[in-house]
Amino acid sequence: MSSFYALIMAGGGGTRLWPLSRRARPKQALMLVGERTMFEHAVDRIAPIFQPEEIFVVTGADQVESLMIQAPELPVGNFLVEPVGRGTAPAIGLGAIHLHRRDPQAVMAVLTADHFIRDVETFRRALLAAAQVAGKGHLVTLGITPSFPSTGFGYILQGERLYEVDGFTVYRAKRFTEKPSAETAFQMVESGLYTWNSGMFIWRVDRILEEISRQMPDLYDVLMQVDAVLGTPAYEPTLARLWPELATQSIDYGVMEGAQDVVVIPVDIGWSDVGNWSSMREILPADADGNVVVGEHLGIDTRNIIVFGGRRLIATIGLEDLIIVDTDDALLVCPVEREQEVREIVRRLQEIRRNDLL
Amino acid sequence: MSSFYALIMAGGGGTRLWPLSRRARPKQALMLVGERTMFEHAVDRIAPIFQPEEIFVVTGADQVESLMIQAPELPVGNFLVEPVGRGTAPAIGLGAIHLHRRDPQAVMAVLTADHFIRDVETFRRALLAAAQVAGKGHLVTLGITPSFPSTGFGYILQGERLYEVDGFTVYRAKRFTEKPSAETAFQMVESGLYTWNSGMFIWRVDRILEEISRQMPDLYDVLMQVDAVLGTPAYEPTLARLWPELATQSIDYGVMEGAQDVVVIPVDIGWSDVGNWSSMREILPADADGNVVVGEHLGIDTRNIIVFGGRRLIATIGLEDLIIVDTDDALLVCPVEREQEVREIVRRLQEIRRNDLL
Repeated sequence: MSSFYALIMAGGGGTRLWPLSRRARPKQALMLVGERTMFEHAVDRIAPIFQPEEIFVVTGADQVESLMIQAPELPVGNFLVEPVGRGTAPAIGLGAIHLHRRDPQAVMAVLTADHFIRDVETFRRALLAAAQVAGKGHLVTLGITPSFPSTGFGYILQGERLYEVDGFTVYRAKRFTEKPSAETAFQMVESGLYTWNSGMFIWRVDRILEEISRQMPDLYDVLMQVDAVLGTPAYEPTLARLWPELATQSIDYGVMEGAQDVVVIPVDIGWSDVGNWSSMREILPADADGNVVVGEHLGIDTRNIIVFGGRRLIATIGLEDLIIVDTDDALLVCPVEREQEVREIVRRLQEIRRNDLL
Repeated sequence: MSSFYALIMAGGGGTRLWPLSRRARPKQALMLVGERTMFEHAVDRIAPIFQPEEIFVVTGADQVESLMIQAPELPVGNFLVEPVGRGTAPAIGLGAIHLHRRDPQAVMAVLTADHFIRDVETFRRALLAAAQVAGKGHLVTLGITPSFPSTGFGYILQGERLYEVDGFTVYRAKRFTEKPSAETAFQMVESGLYTWNSGMFIWRVDRILEEISRQMPDLYDVLMQVDAVLGTPAYEPTLARLWPELATQSIDYGVMEGAQDVVVIPVDIGWSDVGNWSSMREILPADADGNVVVGEHLGIDTRNIIVFGGRRLIATIGLEDLIIVDTDDALLVCPVEREQEVREIVRRLQEIRRNDLL
């Protein structure tokens, strides 16, 4: 089998988990489950199948130091720093040219640092199976078996069933669809033919570079200029000069939708994107009253609330279906059904220039 | 006119404003309005009519240091320290023997440190009028004109109208009643003949000592033993020996109900006992959405909530009639109509021995 590398995408920002997540403390830096950050979990769960030198991380200059401290076992040179974030396509392209130097036929697993995976055992087996499939030249995506008709994810339509590998079924990926309406989502989940696009991909570096070359020639051109100076003192200045000029592009729309030979391996691994506070329910068990609690909670007649606490005792009386998030400098209290309005809070903070809270 | 002294009762405990109030931080130590504690407000509002040496404070050993820091202008000797708290009757008795030494005919105003008074101007005029009445030998109580049929206060029934003093009407006090039922409270307020017992009394020290002697001979006996050593090194040891043996007794039930020549002066002074979080509405203005806020609040579609914050921004979405109290080590979230259950929270904290939060 070809050599196998992991590229952990850890450059994201976002404030959907405000007030816990901030510009300077994105989701991958949060300790949502236990005393490990999401990024640490991402490294931990693949540690049994990758050597430290086989794990690469692509991130931004503002985050790299923190990530190095969180994963000191990884070689410093494995942290690839983008001068500015330009979406997943450039980040993956940068990883690809680095890995291409090591082994043009290398298989790379593009993994996320801001998702939670409950069944890490199955996840690792799926990765190894996917690597075998990718070795043949397929572009492999891991499709998440949907647990509800989400309108928050892209979906992948399964086509022809190709083969079984180590207990996993490989289908041709017939179509990538964007976030659907509620009705469409319901129909797609009912049909049994769709999986969620997890953003996790496994492919040979030569194959993805080939697709980038074909579908995103501008990006490919930049990548080749960077590749030409890779390992020389000109590398960083070149990156700093070229990267800001790139358009922001996701690998899904930039490459996958039009790519040749894309396959999907449906996996049921207890995956959650932890995209909002409600999804804490997917990753943490509830107590007898249906409350999901991180921190110390003393509740009287309190049901189905989500408490994410810090250093304080949180006492509640007669509450239901509420979210309480307590951080050192900001507190959020809102009903579960209105949590999407957290972005409105963030917008108002921008308006009044409370950068300390963003 | 006789000499006039104030005795501020500042020994209370209580956790009805938990998590802000604690055993070691009772209501009089809280900054509920502005940057001054309730005790500081209590001193501030009488400062225009009393010299510092005319203001006495009775409190406990655990609080005296903090109170001295809050009112450094008062002579240290004016802080009377009870070894243990035994209710208002012993505290007032202790104050009375101290003042009796200065002037047996002195008039003393017994005042509280854990209540809020909006109209301090009228309050001061009422005190001066009451002092004139007390000089004649009457035991004067300030009766608060009821603003609603409270079941949380005792009431005083007005009897014969005696005279007018500086715009205040003096009535004979016909009866002290305990906290009434809702129905009785409604009838009492409707009748216009009742006022709330504010716990503020104005009388000559010889008169109150005479009543204590007649109605509480055990307490009087102890007071006389203390009086005998007052100003000598034996004072503190004597107090420490005798005080713990006293029964806990309130001046209302111990003396006032059976006292001779009690009069009441109804006053409308914007008085609030700040007995629970809802009463923050009585002492602070609401914003346009009906929210009463101390601290920094960012609300979306949030109405009629009470926010008592500390150092954090408190962001809320879609909330109504809720109380949020945020302190350094504990947070309370509960509906307004269930705030009496805060005592249940306190009880549970006792049960699990979280003395740090009590």
